[in-house]
Amino acid sequence: MATPPISRYPVPELAGLPDDIRERILAVQQKAGFVPNVFLVLAHRPDEFRAFFAYHDALMEKEGGLSKTEREMIVVATSGANDCLYCIVAHGAILRVYAKNPYVADQVAANYRKADITPRQKAMLAFALKVATASSAIVDEDFATLAAQGFSDEDIWDIGAIAAFFALSNRMANLVNMRPNEEFFLLGRVPRAAKAS
Amino acid sequence: MATPPISRYPVPELAGLPDDIRERILAVQQKAGFVPNVFLVLAHRPDEFRAFFAYHDALMEKEGGLSKTEREMIVVATSGANDCLYCIVAHGAILRVYAKNPYVADQVAANYRKADITPRQKAMLAFALKVATASSAIVDEDFATLAAQGFSDEDIWDIGAIAAFFALSNRMANLVNMRPNEEFFLLGRVPRAAKAS
Amino acid sequence: MATPPISRYPVPELAGLPDDIRERILAVQQKAGFVPNVFLVLAHRPDEFRAFFAYHDALMEKEGGLSKTEREMIVVATSGANDCLYCIVAHGAILRVYAKNPYVADQVAANYRKADITPRQKAMLAFALKVATASSAIVDEDFATLAAQGFSDEDIWDIGAIAAFFALSNRMANLVNMRPNEEFFLLGRVPRAAKAS
Amino acid sequence: MATPPISRYPVPELAGLPDDIRERILAVQQKAGFVPNVFLVLAHRPDEFRAFFAYHDALMEKEGGLSKTEREMIVVATSGANDCLYCIVAHGAILRVYAKNPYVADQVAANYRKADITPRQKAMLAFALKVATASSAIVDEDFATLAAQGFSDEDIWDIGAIAAFFALSNRMANLVNMRPNEEFFLLGRVPRAAKAS
Amino acid sequence: MATPPISRYPVPELAGLPDDIRERILAVQQKAGFVPNVFLVLAHRPDEFRAFFAYHDALMEKEGGLSKTEREMIVVATSGANDCLYCIVAHGAILRVYAKNPYVADQVAANYRKADITPRQKAMLAFALKVATASSAIVDEDFATLAAQGFSDEDIWDIGAIAAFFALSNRMANLVNMRPNEEFFLLGRVPRAAKAS
Amino acid sequence: MATPPISRYPVPELAGLPDDIRERILAVQQKAGFVPNVFLVLAHRPDEFRAFFAYHDALMEKEGGLSKTEREMIVVATSGANDCLYCIVAHGAILRVYAKNPYVADQVAANYRKADITPRQKAMLAFALKVATASSAIVDEDFATLAAQGFSDEDIWDIGAIAAFFALSNRMANLVNMRPNEEFFLLGRVPRAAKAS
Repeated sequence: MATPPISRYPVPELAGLPDDIRERILAVQQKAGFVPNVFLVLAHRPDEFRAFFAYHDALMEKEGGLSKTEREMIVVATSGANDCLYCIVAHGAILRVYAKNPYVADQVAANYRKADITPRQKAMLAFALKVATASSAIVDEDFATLAAQGFSDEDIWDIGAIAAFFALSNRMANLVNMRPNEEFFLLGRVPRAAKAS
Repeated sequence: MATPPISRYPVPELAGLPDDIRERILAVQQKAGFVPNVFLVLAHRPDEFRAFFAYHDALMEKEGGLSKTEREMIVVATSGANDCLYCIVAHGAILRVYAKNPYVADQVAANYRKADITPRQKAMLAFALKVATASSAIVDEDFATLAAQGFSDEDIWDIGAIAAFFALSNRMANLVNMRPNEEFFLLGRVPRAAKAS
Repeated sequence: MATPPISRYPVPELAGLPDDIRERILAVQQKAGFVPNVFLVLAHRPDEFRAFFAYHDALMEKEGGLSKTEREMIVVATSGANDCLYCIVAHGAILRVYAKNPYVADQVAANYRKADITPRQKAMLAFALKVATASSAIVDEDFATLAAQGFSDEDIWDIGAIAAFFALSNRMANLVNMRPNEEFFLLGRVPRAAKAS
Repeated sequence: MATPPISRYPVPELAGLPDDIRERILAVQQKAGFVPNVFLVLAHRPDEFRAFFAYHDALMEKEGGLSKTEREMIVVATSGANDCLYCIVAHGAILRVYAKNPYVADQVAANYRKADITPRQKAMLAFALKVATASSAIVDEDFATLAAQGFSDEDIWDIGAIAAFFALSNRMANLVNMRPNEEFFLLGRVPRAAKAS
Repeated sequence: MATPPISRYPVPELAGLPDDIRERILAVQQKAGFVPNVFLVLAHRPDEFRAFFAYHDALMEKEGGLSKTEREMIVVATSGANDCLYCIVAHGAILRVYAKNPYVADQVAANYRKADITPRQKAMLAFALKVATASSAIVDEDFATLAAQGFSDEDIWDIGAIAAFFALSNRMANLVNMRPNEEFFLLGRVPRAAKAS
Repeated sequence: MATPPISRYPVPELAGLPDDIRERILAVQQKAGFVPNVFLVLAHRPDEFRAFFAYHDALMEKEGGLSKTEREMIVVATSGANDCLYCIVAHGAILRVYAKNPYVADQVAANYRKADITPRQKAMLAFALKVATASSAIVDEDFATLAAQGFSDEDIWDIGAIAAFFALSNRMANLVNMRPNEEFFLLGRVPRAAKAS
């Protein structure tokens, strides 16, 4: 059958987009080798596009106590809880690449308790999932549990804010039926050496 | 007892904030007569503040098929489902003011099915709550149901995106234990005429 | 639009009611300045009316280790969990009046964990919500937790029985679509001094 | 091991009870051949005892469109949903006796969809379970569904009120750890003829 | 009304069954005095019949740290959680017979926390229910809790495997609408002495 | 870090296994190029091993209205609902191979509603998930819905029995913390042609 569309909504042509958005998309394409569909799908609404990626970058590309790999773990675990196909597949790929580990993304998406990660990372994901699924039940004890694992208050904001941002992102992807690029499914699964040979 | 803090995190002084953020806050104070705590609490992270309010404005202040009152209904109903005290109280107040109706916010926060709203608005809130609580189960039939009530595809994006944005907002408020301003509790409850007397 | 009815069922005229019921209703009106709708709605079934209010009074107007304010907190918190509009609004008003606090009812209805109440009261509401939503899971440890907060066994019966009685009350209100009186929405929100001026 | 107590709370001696309560208990004993524990357990609080049984009688012993067997079906089905041991066992026995059917109580307690009952009774129990577990979601369509099965509005009040009353009753039994009398377990299971032989 | 069928699917005649299956059924009939319906219903698919009972026997008839009574407790508790009428009734009967206790099966089916069983057995059933309803949340602490009650690792495999096998069995019974034999409802309820008289 | 064990329980050496089990394992290794861990892990209990694979083969290798690809879809979708890492990864691989489609397994594991499958297959998976998560709610209408998609009664038994069998399998894998072989993560993701080059 023909490839299904990447969104329920119209997907704009690059040529017709505002300059800043087109330039961001071209920069991503330059770096990744393809344009992740989330950029094309959200460009349907330029103002929301700008806010979405500004928020994303503020959380995912900042310095701090969480590594880039850990930030992506939070995305994959909470997207798994929200059954969001796009984010599981796309951020699963990014997590594999950052972690240089072809297995961890599928582990974290299915059940972080069985993943090959540290106890500190399991505590981080337990809290992220509480933010994702039962945020009104957050209590002081949750902060104490994370502090005991070495997380600062600012780290905890990061964990919670990433889980909160992807609560938004997962819902948008489910709303518009966002389709993951085929490239993401394989990315980071084959060791570099094997690919080079 | 002393008034509890408005956030688990440090709340910055206005004087020390970046100019654009301070100006936005002063403008809100000018218009509302007080500064809603969400502005002070999120100013702890200026980049996230800017993205948050850019996203908020893109969804809540745009033109379109949904009235401002209807947009606030979506906020209050989904914040009720997420047990988010700040958003129930603050956006409940805004909803009362926009709707010129002192009862509708409490109705929608508790149970939209019993609110004094139109069947079209009930369909809108049923979908918003599905986005808020079970977005992976969204199917084509949901779009058809809303279309039958006169909603365009762009209206449906608005409904879903507002529910998705407040999924983020509710989680942030629950994370930092954001406290509603006392002003919000009474706002819009007393008819204008009564206040004038 | 016209004011919606206060019940799905016929609401009797005062004149046609049995004497004891009419007198109770007139006494309430005398004291409160209006007749809360629950009296009119349940008068449709006089025998059930009598049992309902006898039960209510036995639990809410007795002496004991719980203050009247605390009893109303239990009602508001469990009615919030049951999404019962009538009880949230009507007992929220009573709670504000008893507590002389215009904020506590909205706090407790949304999320008792973030309310300005004591740790003892939070333990009380945690147990009340367990009775309301998962009573088969009650174990001896729950009694020990409450005893550690100073509650006697009789206090615990009170907490549980109030939660159990409003499990009934909330379901009846939802069944008949009971509408809160407009008076309740504002009651207790404006400080006395302000009202006097 | 020794027989466990029938309540977490003190159980009063018959001799020390108010006359009306002692007389009611003796009358039950006369009729049933034993005193169901609910009478002894609730007698710990005479005012609540009186209200409880007045309410019970108003719902369970009235005339109307529901047979006594059907009323007990509602009790058993909703008590099953609430995992209330006392009510499943005690009212299961009463249901077997009324229905002259040794199987229907266990069927209805486990899963009414598979019980040997009429489609009308299945619709009745589906609604009773909605009242028991999700009463805020009751909508006009539920009334229409029941009307199509021949239930009047007053019948629907009965169904809902019985489910609501046992929401209270189940929670009280779970709170005080009420123990079913051993007699109930066998009652109604052996056909009369067999017993006579 | 006529007795409903014991399965939604065709039930084979004994005469037409493969020899091994017919012999097993006749042996059961010899021992129990009747043929439990599960044998007739599953004989519709001989290969699945053989695997089902081989698995059943491997778990339920082996030696080990769990008594036969305890194994049946696991079946009844998890079948209660799965609302499986056939298994509650049939294995409830077997549990009564093994335990020589006419009450324990109804207790465990409704709420093991209130059953007349040992703390060790309550820990066993708490874990069995976790396997039945939330197996992905099993963590090392669960094994430690059971070890503290004296269960070996092999005992824990037994508990978990019985809960897992009846997860299958309950779903098959619900799928085909398997009807319990009337004999099971009374079995083990009447003390031997009474029956002899 | 060192590779974690493939089971919480001892994993037997091939040499010490009963002949029939060792031969089955060697045959699988011959065919697949490696031994899937489920064979080694379950060999800890030979009798359960034999019953498990006899059941598996009876359901997964039989002729009938469901293709092998469709049978694996049922496994992957229900294992996703049960958060079973081993089955998602191992049967995801098998599904990719059977379907000659590198994307469908991740789609079905996350959310079958968004998978590139036919409406008939979506109806099949909706029913399989009902068997997996709410089997007591199965009603005649479910059979009618599937019949309308062309499924025979025997096909429906297959769908339900596969979902039921993997309810067992998922729980065993979660109980023993079964680890997927690394080979499964990549299997079926790279088109043959690409691999040949």
